[in-house]
Amino acid sequence: MKPKASSEHEDQVGKAGGKITPRAEDYPQWYQDVIREAEMAEPAKVVKGCMVIKPHGYAVWEKIQRELDGRFKATGHKNAYFPLLIPQSFITKEAEHVEGFAPELAVVTHAGGEKLDEPYVIRPTSETVIGYFFSRWVDSYRDLPLLMNQWANVMRWEKRTRMFLRTTEFLWQEGHTAHANHQEAQEEVQRMLGVYGDFAEEVMAMPVIRGVKTESEKFAGALQSSCIEAMMQDGKALQAGTSHDLGQNFGKAFNVQFQTQAGNREYVWQTSWGVSTRLIGGLIMTHADDAGLVLPPRLAPIHVVIVPIFRSDDERSRVMAAAERIKAELVDIDISPPRARYRDFLEVVIDDRDMKPGAKFYDWERRGVPVRVELGPKDLEKDQVCVKMRVDSEAGKGKEFIPQAQFIATIRERLAKFQDALLAAARARLAARSVELNTWDEFLKTFAGEQSSFAWCHWDGTRETEARIKEQTRATIRCIPLPGQGPAPEPGQCIVTGKPSAQRVLIARAY
Amino acid sequence: MKPKASSEHEDQVGKAGGKITPRAEDYPQWYQDVIREAEMAEPAKVVKGCMVIKPHGYAVWEKIQRELDGRFKATGHKNAYFPLLIPQSFITKEAEHVEGFAPELAVVTHAGGEKLDEPYVIRPTSETVIGYFFSRWVDSYRDLPLLMNQWANVMRWEKRTRMFLRTTEFLWQEGHTAHANHQEAQEEVQRMLGVYGDFAEEVMAMPVIRGVKTESEKFAGALQSSCIEAMMQDGKALQAGTSHDLGQNFGKAFNVQFQTQAGNREYVWQTSWGVSTRLIGGLIMTHADDAGLVLPPRLAPIHVVIVPIFRSDDERSRVMAAAERIKAELVDIDISPPRARYRDFLEVVIDDRDMKPGAKFYDWERRGVPVRVELGPKDLEKDQVCVKMRVDSEAGKGKEFIPQAQFIATIRERLAKFQDALLAAARARLAARSVELNTWDEFLKTFAGEQSSFAWCHWDGTRETEARIKEQTRATIRCIPLPGQGPAPEPGQCIVTGKPSAQRVLIARAY
Repeated sequence: MKPKASSEHEDQVGKAGGKITPRAEDYPQWYQDVIREAEMAEPAKVVKGCMVIKPHGYAVWEKIQRELDGRFKATGHKNAYFPLLIPQSFITKEAEHVEGFAPELAVVTHAGGEKLDEPYVIRPTSETVIGYFFSRWVDSYRDLPLLMNQWANVMRWEKRTRMFLRTTEFLWQEGHTAHANHQEAQEEVQRMLGVYGDFAEEVMAMPVIRGVKTESEKFAGALQSSCIEAMMQDGKALQAGTSHDLGQNFGKAFNVQFQTQAGNREYVWQTSWGVSTRLIGGLIMTHADDAGLVLPPRLAPIHVVIVPIFRSDDERSRVMAAAERIKAELVDIDISPPRARYRDFLEVVIDDRDMKPGAKFYDWERRGVPVRVELGPKDLEKDQVCVKMRVDSEAGKGKEFIPQAQFIATIRERLAKFQDALLAAARARLAARSVELNTWDEFLKTFAGEQSSFAWCHWDGTRETEARIKEQTRATIRCIPLPGQGPAPEPGQCIVTGKPSAQRVLIARAY
Repeated sequence: MKPKASSEHEDQVGKAGGKITPRAEDYPQWYQDVIREAEMAEPAKVVKGCMVIKPHGYAVWEKIQRELDGRFKATGHKNAYFPLLIPQSFITKEAEHVEGFAPELAVVTHAGGEKLDEPYVIRPTSETVIGYFFSRWVDSYRDLPLLMNQWANVMRWEKRTRMFLRTTEFLWQEGHTAHANHQEAQEEVQRMLGVYGDFAEEVMAMPVIRGVKTESEKFAGALQSSCIEAMMQDGKALQAGTSHDLGQNFGKAFNVQFQTQAGNREYVWQTSWGVSTRLIGGLIMTHADDAGLVLPPRLAPIHVVIVPIFRSDDERSRVMAAAERIKAELVDIDISPPRARYRDFLEVVIDDRDMKPGAKFYDWERRGVPVRVELGPKDLEKDQVCVKMRVDSEAGKGKEFIPQAQFIATIRERLAKFQDALLAAARARLAARSVELNTWDEFLKTFAGEQSSFAWCHWDGTRETEARIKEQTRATIRCIPLPGQGPAPEPGQCIVTGKPSAQRVLIARAY
């Protein structure tokens, strides 16, 4: 059901301090190098296909979590926690669901020193066990809608894994809701897809295409799956979030019935929606460069690094005192969005390690810190501060010397512009690498070798044609775009069969 | 190693809307009733010994998490995430550890449709797998101290379970640190025990005794375990948090060596420390009463419920307008502690359900909302608001009529005083039920039947005497108190053997 990683690179173990392979030379290797050098994560190795999320990576996840969590709560959802283990028989109750997930299950057969009568599986997703509890909680239309979310770990025994993008265990959130009618459920699906899309663009600075999955790419057990698809720097697509219309499939499988206002018994209409630590993979492949990680300020665990520069002990003490003064001013800056349920101050590090400044610059660049401040005796004399943004843009090119008096205001402004500049750059890349293709020859050329673009093509709507595209090129139909998310609908002819088509769909190779 | 639940009550399923058994009649049943009626959690039943944490319970856990998380970060710790699964062979590498945990393991033998070469266990705690990664990360004294924490689910296949207090799966945090010498590790153990103790008292309003576990009660694999012990309303003890000095045990088992400043290779000194969703059980049994849950304001998901009172449509619209006005004023009140990384506003609910006011009062009392506001046409005429605190205390007895102009200031003051009053009441209970016992006869009387108190007794320090106390009374030595945590040390004679003893220890029945 899901596309598999196509790279030949297995996750590699290694200590930070090595080199970062340029993207042009070997993109998958570059990805691994960036993760290792930024100390985001490392492959667990002793646990197949798992990773350890290291502090710098986990801090990004925490910022993703709290921001999404606020948005879920603002849309009326409440968090709860359901069991990790699911009776094996539960998985088999929805026919498509078991077909999709059975091959990937991890099974607990023994516990407490005994063989279990019925094995448990570790949740690959929780529709089944939550369906069971919904059947206990829902009795009347007054109990609906039921709007829940869970932050949890899940496990899918994948053969080919890649850090963040696809690991056997991963962290995610799964929303689960039940409604009295189909229309409300469909509205919920679109509402949460909207939350994901807004989050991706506003916070991750990662533009996305919102659309609907084809029948063969939808979630196992859903009526219909919606998704957001992001373009990575190599032109491949990343499914960054999904929102499913489950119809009454799980309602029927778990007998979740309610009494309607008219007094009838009906099955509830359900939705589920999720994003995972995979978002961090998307973040890396949207913004990082050959020098390492690049983080948008809204997700950066550290915003500013101050590198003191001195040659003598006297210079050192003067420069360090000034650095501490600047830091004290910076860390009082509250950068929280209005009425956010978290409070963010600028995070500032003074790097006074016994190393050459150049080595420090290199180090913090790899970790994606947005702003570097250099401070030496000459800067003190001139009442100025040297500022360098992690990525050059209109708002800050090369090293700039900012008068001390304007420093704080400049940093605030630079950070806001940096966030915007990253989104603008990603949008420009997306536009530049999106193409409308009309012939199969063009298509084959676009997807030659390992290449990918976002190709907007007419498709005849059949499973057969979709399978043929995938077989011949390993490109897949990523989605049928929602209004405004792709070229304006105009009738055309399928790129493979020439049969009529009402609108173009998005085709790309995918992670 | 750990005391087992002594009650005969298994977790019972049931819908909210039933009655709450009085504590005096059946304490364990009361505990279950409170959880059910407040909709905090329910037994999963289909997954042995697990529970579902429902939104009202999970919201309390979220408040516990964010407050503790801030305190961990303020003491220099960083969050990370390690694999759920642990190779079975890892558990056996530390001799005492395997002895303690082997009987409680859940084992994954199959995954991805195949039998695994080596089974994995679901983490019962992560010393082993984290020890393995520490060995990859630590090379030099410059890499130390390594200060990490993980928020995660863990699994221990317990035979007797009780919601929150002991479930096969539970949520917790586990801190894991590595240090260059024993003294630093010991300081870390005490620092984190201090964080737990302060949190319990300042935020949970739950007084605790800080102490050291005996050899037979310590964590499997530790040199020494420290703990905080709280007294429940029935006089039993709850181990609410532990902080372990692991010595070099896991360093040796996983070969975590570092080069010292002097150039030698040495094993690191490690600590681990944790609290879990069990704290919620402690919270319930510290504050709840026969009317249901009682929550300290700092952990309450809802602070104020406004119940509009009216008989006609005209009254309704006037009262509801006033209620909305009051709510709008209240929800703007920022109650966050200074420089907290979260931002808390008063959470206010207007209960306009089509029910009698009395039924609403009853409902919100059961959920532990600290402040109830009643608002009717007469109150509007008199420019007043009727306020009733969840528990009577000096700061608010019975229903009070507060002039509108003083309402906001009064609510703020009442909430602060309510938090203090709960702690004071719990402290008074702890003092009233703490006794110094000097003879075995007194001891047997104190622990007759199912009774328990916090008994401070002299003990000869031997494993044999400890076992004899437990065997005869099911009371256990909860801890050897830290200075200032129990009666001033004075020499005496063991309550069982009459042998000499340097100080009294804390003995109680425990959850």
